[in-house]
Amino acid sequence: MDISEKILKEEERYTGNFLKVSNIDVELPDGNLASRDVIRHPGASAILPLTDDGEVILVKQFRTALNKVIIEVPAGKLEKGEEPILCAKRELEEETGYKAKEFKYLGKICTVPGFCDEIIHLYLATGIYEGIKGGDEDEFTEIIKVSIEEMKEMVKKGDIIDTKSINCLCQYMLQCQ
Amino acid sequence: MDISEKILKEEERYTGNFLKVSNIDVELPDGNLASRDVIRHPGASAILPLTDDGEVILVKQFRTALNKVIIEVPAGKLEKGEEPILCAKRELEEETGYKAKEFKYLGKICTVPGFCDEIIHLYLATGIYEGIKGGDEDEFTEIIKVSIEEMKEMVKKGDIIDTKSINCLCQYMLQCQ
Repeated sequence: MDISEKILKEEERYTGNFLKVSNIDVELPDGNLASRDVIRHPGASAILPLTDDGEVILVKQFRTALNKVIIEVPAGKLEKGEEPILCAKRELEEETGYKAKEFKYLGKICTVPGFCDEIIHLYLATGIYEGIKGGDEDEFTEIIKVSIEEMKEMVKKGDIIDTKSINCLCQYMLQCQ
Repeated sequence: MDISEKILKEEERYTGNFLKVSNIDVELPDGNLASRDVIRHPGASAILPLTDDGEVILVKQFRTALNKVIIEVPAGKLEKGEEPILCAKRELEEETGYKAKEFKYLGKICTVPGFCDEIIHLYLATGIYEGIKGGDEDEFTEIIKVSIEEMKEMVKKGDIIDTKSINCLCQYMLQCQ
């Protein structure tokens, strides 16, 4: 059985700072009609930066949506037309002040397929060396460094709940350990 | 340094089928002001159902936002006031037609902290037995069963890109293997 839906019409309902909310009319597999809310997102890159000393560089950042500070891997949105690998290089330096000699692609994820088209490209960054922190004026962050084993414990205990960070760790465990 | 922001005002800008888009004025740690888009989401539960034969029950589902069929663990939104564990039990049966004797809490994730407050609660379900598939009228899904090792391969190869599914697998690897 074909379980695909046919998109009949997409109408933009709200445009925010970087998000667009669309309402989409679809034809269901049985021929009936339905209406769905979809957020259009530019996509993003996320980086697991692993130093020669075996330390992962993580970022503490306040997240307005959750109204608290959480711990994440460095990451950021794609600029218009930007290649994911260039975004990864840019965001790593902007958010941590470090650069990397090598980037290994770990795959992509969809974060919220039920209502948003965001795709995040995941990279392992090694050969870490110092660059210049800075970039977004309204981002206030702190850097912490932990071992891979400590990161695993933080995920188990719920000290890291950010999904892209846990995905980076999972792909590292599956592909690199 | 305190890197927290102070939320000054939240204004609802758009209300969709189940999402609300708010615009929030914040005071940054340096005293400057900024404006942020935030999606308000009811939260969800996701389940890694593992049969006595060592098979994981996954769901193939068309996702309008991505305009394709993807493979995910069973999951669904919390109804108003619903406990995450009850949501997990309900969604497991609705989406797969199976019930479970035991649910182990694997932790929670935030899916898109940059713009949405969605929290997904993750569960391992064991002691699987047959129930009744059905529920949402406009959901057309197919069930597949794979071993944990096959699921790991699917994540590595990019055949599973759904983040909550990969998080369930990661927590299973960290907590149960």
